[in-house]
Amino acid sequence: MTREDGRSASELRPIHIEKAFLRNAHGSALVTWGHTRVLCTAMFSAGVPSFLENTDQGWLTAEYAMLPASTPQRKPRDRQRPDGRSTEIGRLIGRALRCVCDLTSIPGYTITIDCDVIDADGGTRTASITGAYVALRECEARMEAEGLLLKPLLWDGVAAVSCGIVDGETLLDLAYNEDSRADADINVVFSHSGGLIEVQGTGEKRPISSDELTVLMELATAGARQIQEIQKAALGL
Amino acid sequence: MTREDGRSASELRPIHIEKAFLRNAHGSALVTWGHTRVLCTAMFSAGVPSFLENTDQGWLTAEYAMLPASTPQRKPRDRQRPDGRSTEIGRLIGRALRCVCDLTSIPGYTITIDCDVIDADGGTRTASITGAYVALRECEARMEAEGLLLKPLLWDGVAAVSCGIVDGETLLDLAYNEDSRADADINVVFSHSGGLIEVQGTGEKRPISSDELTVLMELATAGARQIQEIQKAALGL
Amino acid sequence: MTREDGRSASELRPIHIEKAFLRNAHGSALVTWGHTRVLCTAMFSAGVPSFLENTDQGWLTAEYAMLPASTPQRKPRDRQRPDGRSTEIGRLIGRALRCVCDLTSIPGYTITIDCDVIDADGGTRTASITGAYVALRECEARMEAEGLLLKPLLWDGVAAVSCGIVDGETLLDLAYNEDSRADADINVVFSHSGGLIEVQGTGEKRPISSDELTVLMELATAGARQIQEIQKAALGL
Amino acid sequence: MTREDGRSASELRPIHIEKAFLRNAHGSALVTWGHTRVLCTAMFSAGVPSFLENTDQGWLTAEYAMLPASTPQRKPRDRQRPDGRSTEIGRLIGRALRCVCDLTSIPGYTITIDCDVIDADGGTRTASITGAYVALRECEARMEAEGLLLKPLLWDGVAAVSCGIVDGETLLDLAYNEDSRADADINVVFSHSGGLIEVQGTGEKRPISSDELTVLMELATAGARQIQEIQKAALGL
Amino acid sequence: MTREDGRSASELRPIHIEKAFLRNAHGSALVTWGHTRVLCTAMFSAGVPSFLENTDQGWLTAEYAMLPASTPQRKPRDRQRPDGRSTEIGRLIGRALRCVCDLTSIPGYTITIDCDVIDADGGTRTASITGAYVALRECEARMEAEGLLLKPLLWDGVAAVSCGIVDGETLLDLAYNEDSRADADINVVFSHSGGLIEVQGTGEKRPISSDELTVLMELATAGARQIQEIQKAALGL
Amino acid sequence: MTREDGRSASELRPIHIEKAFLRNAHGSALVTWGHTRVLCTAMFSAGVPSFLENTDQGWLTAEYAMLPASTPQRKPRDRQRPDGRSTEIGRLIGRALRCVCDLTSIPGYTITIDCDVIDADGGTRTASITGAYVALRECEARMEAEGLLLKPLLWDGVAAVSCGIVDGETLLDLAYNEDSRADADINVVFSHSGGLIEVQGTGEKRPISSDELTVLMELATAGARQIQEIQKAALGL
Repeated sequence: MTREDGRSASELRPIHIEKAFLRNAHGSALVTWGHTRVLCTAMFSAGVPSFLENTDQGWLTAEYAMLPASTPQRKPRDRQRPDGRSTEIGRLIGRALRCVCDLTSIPGYTITIDCDVIDADGGTRTASITGAYVALRECEARMEAEGLLLKPLLWDGVAAVSCGIVDGETLLDLAYNEDSRADADINVVFSHSGGLIEVQGTGEKRPISSDELTVLMELATAGARQIQEIQKAALGL
Repeated sequence: MTREDGRSASELRPIHIEKAFLRNAHGSALVTWGHTRVLCTAMFSAGVPSFLENTDQGWLTAEYAMLPASTPQRKPRDRQRPDGRSTEIGRLIGRALRCVCDLTSIPGYTITIDCDVIDADGGTRTASITGAYVALRECEARMEAEGLLLKPLLWDGVAAVSCGIVDGETLLDLAYNEDSRADADINVVFSHSGGLIEVQGTGEKRPISSDELTVLMELATAGARQIQEIQKAALGL
Repeated sequence: MTREDGRSASELRPIHIEKAFLRNAHGSALVTWGHTRVLCTAMFSAGVPSFLENTDQGWLTAEYAMLPASTPQRKPRDRQRPDGRSTEIGRLIGRALRCVCDLTSIPGYTITIDCDVIDADGGTRTASITGAYVALRECEARMEAEGLLLKPLLWDGVAAVSCGIVDGETLLDLAYNEDSRADADINVVFSHSGGLIEVQGTGEKRPISSDELTVLMELATAGARQIQEIQKAALGL
Repeated sequence: MTREDGRSASELRPIHIEKAFLRNAHGSALVTWGHTRVLCTAMFSAGVPSFLENTDQGWLTAEYAMLPASTPQRKPRDRQRPDGRSTEIGRLIGRALRCVCDLTSIPGYTITIDCDVIDADGGTRTASITGAYVALRECEARMEAEGLLLKPLLWDGVAAVSCGIVDGETLLDLAYNEDSRADADINVVFSHSGGLIEVQGTGEKRPISSDELTVLMELATAGARQIQEIQKAALGL
Repeated sequence: MTREDGRSASELRPIHIEKAFLRNAHGSALVTWGHTRVLCTAMFSAGVPSFLENTDQGWLTAEYAMLPASTPQRKPRDRQRPDGRSTEIGRLIGRALRCVCDLTSIPGYTITIDCDVIDADGGTRTASITGAYVALRECEARMEAEGLLLKPLLWDGVAAVSCGIVDGETLLDLAYNEDSRADADINVVFSHSGGLIEVQGTGEKRPISSDELTVLMELATAGARQIQEIQKAALGL
Repeated sequence: MTREDGRSASELRPIHIEKAFLRNAHGSALVTWGHTRVLCTAMFSAGVPSFLENTDQGWLTAEYAMLPASTPQRKPRDRQRPDGRSTEIGRLIGRALRCVCDLTSIPGYTITIDCDVIDADGGTRTASITGAYVALRECEARMEAEGLLLKPLLWDGVAAVSCGIVDGETLLDLAYNEDSRADADINVVFSHSGGLIEVQGTGEKRPISSDELTVLMELATAGARQIQEIQKAALGL
């Protein structure tokens, strides 16, 4: 099978991350991932959720949304009732980043990550996590410059990637036209040091065999390693 | 390490499924899983979501909720704003069951699964999926008896189980006191024929190594096989 | 007229109350009342509504809901907009129980009653009040054991029953098939000592005559006396 | 005991009903009942709720609200979450009026009653029902004039009144300063022909004895008879 | 062109303002403006929005609503989702009144203006502002009498009027049948001392020329001067 | 007075409009206006609001939102309750564009404009309208290419600009630090042919004199003429 955009099965789409894309945000990144584009921001503010009051811990939370015009058919804003998928992805982004944060470095503060998709072509949740890490790094530096960090916040990096089974083939980094007809897909979040932070695999049309899972995890692992380099370049590391 | 309830690392809690627990529901099951209890129901009704109108497909969707008194501290009902976690679990239950359904057997109909936790002690999402399958089987039989099925709805079964890493040990089927301090946990949904339908693994406190993932998947696979037998017994198969 | 289930006009359906049905709730009762079943719970928590802050009074409030599968047609959860009938019944339950509570025995605490109907066949509001009293007794005992009561909370008991006029006959304890075609119905809450706590009578199809009201109140009084004995038995009194 | 406003125990406050108070409403009445004032309107519109589609029946429904400045402390509008009490009273008004309507006279139409309290001093729900009947009569006449009635809509009248037990005395028509410290109160809706349409009695502070109930019902019956005359005068009957 | 109600192009409809129309409100006015009627109230309460806490300033805010029966077709209450137009008008009323208030005279207090339209025939927003000023004056006097004012609250008056272009003619004070087919309309708020507080002009069907704007502003200026006299008369000044 | 960014009183900030910024939107423009940036999109879809069903008219509506990180302090998304200011600006944008549209060219279709502020530094509403016009032009071309236009949609252009009075000086195009301390400000929308489409002037701290209004309108007129040229350049006209 040839992929519509000419990629090989194990090839990522072109990825570019522009750090500090916004002026007012404490940290921001515009991720361009093939035709998908996501605006990721990080903002800190005083105050923590009630379950953390009077503890030595700060908090990090995340929200995800798609701009109405990010899809070929306008998607209504979820003003009246929150969209289930958006809620779920927001929770995933927050969980993934908290896994590499030492929240005792920011007692009394909450960092909020916002990922707003401006062009959607598949892989928006992994692009969001990948860009959010870059925005969070910028936000961490800003907090350090303002003397608000007790110690380093991030003790590792985070990169995410998807892969899936399409027409019987295991493919890295599905674009929308692949994702929409995939038998199964998997989203994986890795730490820069190589650990598995989150795996979400779904047999959309049929169960995944054990061998297929092994191949998908290998593809993802290799992809994440490349993405990590792109993040580091964007951060000037 | 000894587990608080005396189980071995690879041992499930006692599980019992009472089919047809309710009178009005088209299908129902009361799942007792250690101290966790979930009431699972399946109801069919005429009509499909708008994106399926004028197709040959029916639909299956699911909702999950915790009764206010299912936890040691009363949990407010999510009347004003849906709870993110509940939304996410409802979506998972629906996705898992749809994977083994032939929705072209019920064109024009929607089946709604409801999982209401009445006692929570960890593992409520896997208990929900496990019980929902039993309720769905009863609902399928009811629809067949009423002449509403074009062909069999379910072409496979579904069983779910969790496992996790606690104090460095990989454990099957975490109770709440284990889950709340786990380094990582994983929820896995298997088809009865052994395929992987959904995997959701999270490094809560630290990333999971590749070897740990392998062990966790083995524990889950063995556990799911036992759960499948309990489901079959409840269904009289 | 013969009633569909063979009862005489002044006969209750079989009623059974299982105390302490749940593990985590501070008080609970599963009421089985003919084919109607309601799960009643009582939970205490620190804090009172703002209008009671800095007073010597605690509070008791109640919520009522029907599980989606409790009726022959699935009833949507009232997540987006609270159901008027549920709101009204919740307010009734709270008012009825507060009438026999000395709220100065629990300053600074709120007890929340939850009544969740799992099978509906008429009489759910009277079954809810009847079961809630049993759950509340268990909750009171728990608070006493924890040293949280300044003095006894409940100074009387509460039992509720409905009756109505169907095809010109006055009947005790209407089942759904009777209630749905009744000309009039009445829900009455009595204290165990025989006082009237709440009466709600409605001429659904036509006004009630003064004589009919007298007969309905007599039927209800006799019924409540029997229900009171069933409550006492469930409580081991 | 002397009542603060000098009335005897069985005396109503001065009641005045101004019919056709508004210009655009299809029927309207401004009820002045002591210091309580309620603006009652009736509007018809094409369409019925879904459960009545394709039947020969129309519908009547009601909403109740208090203007923010109707009470000594501003009461917020229930824009975000409907107020439980308002919902309950709206349901009562609708039920009471439907009891004397032949809804088969307006197939395909819904009449909506709105009762907006502009000055509150106790008895707003009975003033609402009493005025709504007058507004409904005007609306019926308007529908007849437009040729929209198949036959008469109203086959009886409706009048409502409250009474209660204050400091051990049974009193007719409680003002706010009486209602707020009443041991018990009762709201009764009568048909003009003398039947009981709705009774809602509550032992606020203690149960009501059987004898007290008898006296309260007698007071209410006598009061309703006078109110009925005031309604007829307002309607020019 | 002759106007339907026989007015000249520069003539106001008959306007009457009844001060202190309500009993419980701290300030109130019933404005009758042709066939339009609006009930305006002002209520003070302790507390300020969070952005003013710990400052020397109080606050004034406003809400606007139409009663369901104020229009020929019943307008649903905006209970579920606030109506955009109502929100916008509420904000305008608040802004206009704040412009002539010295909010440092009421530190720690909020005054809430409510404008409820009971009969709508065009010009409801200008009638609201005009009446709200009268209600606010009464509220100011009440606060002064209670010793709650540090110094005078209002240092000027406020009057509002609309005009528009209909069939090529510039007309003062549009009634609904004029407003609904106007090419353009403009709402203007003036201070009693003659300054412009707010202007909102909209080319509904076509842009407004510069000359037309001049004429409209002149009409409005003259109209506002007359309205100001009516306000003063209502206030007994 | 010197302006903080060195501009003269009648000088605009640097404005740049990038057309077709997004891939999926039917029309889009990224407006950079000093430090303010707004993403404007236009999407058409089949269907019209119910009040236009069965007419020969299409519709155009608009929504406005600020991204959470567009301001120095994170602004929560208006998911639970729509923000009043956002609602008001959305209505303004829609009204302004409809004034130059012939909606009979798109019967059965609705065009939705979305303006999402990504960096806010004052003037976001005028930047939104200015950019929305460019996006709408692109959308019109797309609809024409798809054969969906009966005739030209836009018969004129639209440009918007603000000005205000700061420290006694009348200034064109206020940046945030000027706007926040302005005595008065005015937002004006002009058609390209020079007509006034919308004017919204507010005396924030004190009324505006008649002479000041004249000067402000002159400043705005001159500014709009320059903005119109920038729009034309962006559109390649």
